[in-house]
Amino acid sequence: MLFQNIKILDEKLNCKDPMYVGIKGDKIDYIGTEAPKEDYGESYDGRGKLLMSGFFNSHAHTPMTLMRGYGENMSLQDWLTLRIFPFEDKLNGEAVYYGMLLGIAESLRFGIVSTTDMYYFGDEMARAILESGVKNNLGRGVVNFTDEPPDLLPGMQETKHLFETYHNEGGGRLKVDISLHGEYTSNPKTAEYLAGYARANGANMHVHVSETQFETEECKKRHGMTPVQYLNARGIFDARTTAAHCVWLEEDDFDILAQKGVTVASCPVSNLKLASGVCNVPLLLKKGVNVAIGTDSVASNNSLNIIEEMKFFAVANKGKQFDPTLITPAEALTAATAAGAKGQGRDDTGKLAVGYKADLIVLDLMQPNMVPIHNMVNNIVYAASGSDILLTMVDGRVLYRNGEYLTIDMEKTLYGVEKAIERILGELK
Amino acid sequence: MLFQNIKILDEKLNCKDPMYVGIKGDKIDYIGTEAPKEDYGESYDGRGKLLMSGFFNSHAHTPMTLMRGYGENMSLQDWLTLRIFPFEDKLNGEAVYYGMLLGIAESLRFGIVSTTDMYYFGDEMARAILESGVKNNLGRGVVNFTDEPPDLLPGMQETKHLFETYHNEGGGRLKVDISLHGEYTSNPKTAEYLAGYARANGANMHVHVSETQFETEECKKRHGMTPVQYLNARGIFDARTTAAHCVWLEEDDFDILAQKGVTVASCPVSNLKLASGVCNVPLLLKKGVNVAIGTDSVASNNSLNIIEEMKFFAVANKGKQFDPTLITPAEALTAATAAGAKGQGRDDTGKLAVGYKADLIVLDLMQPNMVPIHNMVNNIVYAASGSDILLTMVDGRVLYRNGEYLTIDMEKTLYGVEKAIERILGELK
Repeated sequence: MLFQNIKILDEKLNCKDPMYVGIKGDKIDYIGTEAPKEDYGESYDGRGKLLMSGFFNSHAHTPMTLMRGYGENMSLQDWLTLRIFPFEDKLNGEAVYYGMLLGIAESLRFGIVSTTDMYYFGDEMARAILESGVKNNLGRGVVNFTDEPPDLLPGMQETKHLFETYHNEGGGRLKVDISLHGEYTSNPKTAEYLAGYARANGANMHVHVSETQFETEECKKRHGMTPVQYLNARGIFDARTTAAHCVWLEEDDFDILAQKGVTVASCPVSNLKLASGVCNVPLLLKKGVNVAIGTDSVASNNSLNIIEEMKFFAVANKGKQFDPTLITPAEALTAATAAGAKGQGRDDTGKLAVGYKADLIVLDLMQPNMVPIHNMVNNIVYAASGSDILLTMVDGRVLYRNGEYLTIDMEKTLYGVEKAIERILGELK
Repeated sequence: MLFQNIKILDEKLNCKDPMYVGIKGDKIDYIGTEAPKEDYGESYDGRGKLLMSGFFNSHAHTPMTLMRGYGENMSLQDWLTLRIFPFEDKLNGEAVYYGMLLGIAESLRFGIVSTTDMYYFGDEMARAILESGVKNNLGRGVVNFTDEPPDLLPGMQETKHLFETYHNEGGGRLKVDISLHGEYTSNPKTAEYLAGYARANGANMHVHVSETQFETEECKKRHGMTPVQYLNARGIFDARTTAAHCVWLEEDDFDILAQKGVTVASCPVSNLKLASGVCNVPLLLKKGVNVAIGTDSVASNNSLNIIEEMKFFAVANKGKQFDPTLITPAEALTAATAAGAKGQGRDDTGKLAVGYKADLIVLDLMQPNMVPIHNMVNNIVYAASGSDILLTMVDGRVLYRNGEYLTIDMEKTLYGVEKAIERILGELK
């Protein structure tokens, strides 16, 4: 495909116009101010449009689309025990498959090309990922509430199965991450076992860290360490790790995360909505931590609207710390693109540059909320509406265009979601 | 127009389906589960769609679209003195007219049917309002930095002219409010004069109140009273008043606002982005205050996306007060609809009920982010994307439909905006 006469946001987030961008196979092959001599196939008229890197959702539980808006305004404990856990107990592979496809469609509509996911029924999630053409770092969250040997845990067995079956499938689109659910849902032996498995296999780790004050304080009581110190002592951070939330960090934690090259996936909407707090992103950035953005699940968000999430990410700390100069629009946009790609171990994407993977989106600039353009990055982060995306492309393949999902049968997906929810709610009555 | 087979959100925010809704003239004439016998003209196929009250933006400076994204990440003082004030100094009527039209188009795209505005060049704003068909409570903010007699102030003279010329024009669509910019930009005589004028003419008041800690503390030093106490003592609240922001309220303030029937227009995005703080909406609601939602200007937002604003409104206090049960989705939706209408003195709108004005929107339910629907209000507040609006109708007239602006010449508007900005930036060089 050849994008013609289009504005682009280059790898330094500078806006250039008018440009030509040629895609060959799964890569960006040409960027120039003049039409290339080579034939790149279909021409795309880019007037009034912006071509830029797609978004990376660095922490999600995508199949939880099924629980969107199911229980609001409850305490965390009530929400989990009265709503989420009973519903999840009734899930099966079919429900997760359709919930996953629905979430992938939503992700594509909002310009997300790749997601770091943690959930159950990994085979069905993998199937949806491979069929739909998106990228995903898939993990089965491992928990251990008893003293079971880690290698016998169902979560660990599924993790091994997923890793052996799917890791780097789809031409590398699908990666399997080793996912420890969290400190408070496991024990030291389990954490160490997972860390060892990740190290031995060169896999990434994904873990919930210091989401709530309660979790953090309980960890300190149990282990005499913060969750970050504890996970570091267990060797988790020796693998490339994505640490989700990190709301209740203490002084040393910032340095540990920086030294160990951990990616923090900040989830501002979920953290505000569940009343967990605000992650201190400015200090993480100051310490040199790679900070990315996650939507968390739509049960606690309730959308995968990552443009909206960037706006929350950019303003939450300004408001909390009473300093409007904290977090620039470029820092927010980087968190949702290049930093996310880096956290996923995808060093060949997240930027619009020759040689990088063509994981790209086209944004509509002709809507009134995008006029005028004093500064393109300011408009993307603060003025764009989540669904102003006209096209989403992964590995050079167009997956979403003008409201159409080219790899997902939406009618079948919506029917599958409806039937799954009908069954589950029926069983819960 | 007859909406057929459509889901509706009724006056109690209950979702009903499938329904028929007939519009006659500027009013909702029929709501029923069966097709009416009367002929309502054009049929609208409502399958997969929701019909509900349009949104009311209770605090804005609409023509500031021209300054969208012009200056970010600066201290409030630098932003105002280096960016906003010099730009505003170069505005003329033509620039404001086109900026206003652009903002009206954006408002319609996001489902806003009526806006409470405070700005300059009221004749040109009124022209854009009357031409485009929207509703607006228009005010010229009055300031007094010297000791000029209030009746001779240019702002007061323009206010009188606007009130005498336009109040209740457009069949009541355009109302002129008496707008005191704020305590810190005027003096007691000016405040009292405006309050007297509003009382004598049965007009509404609109005023900025306790937006920043600095403003609040300086007021206490100057007058020994909080801004709310001061404005109350000047008689401002004896008229129906919209008080914008109210971030730094003190204990008595909540009771005064409740007793005087003041509408608080909370602007959570702007307050977070400018690092002003978070309005204590839960306590205002508990005291019985009519709380509405404003976007403030797009110079500090940077959009008029009121669905997004509802989400910020609903979660900002949960996060700040560490209580996820604060502010229900229904309270957020009411703030953006019925409470806004009430604050504007429009008691005949803001609800979908027979006899009410047909100020309505149609929301697309077929997008993946709106599936499933465990609860419609939860989905609207937390999952909808701002631009999921398919149709916006004011006084029974369709002004926006499927991306088209039926009363605004967008080509001419975009050209006018471009030329105005070119001129202003040229003069500022």
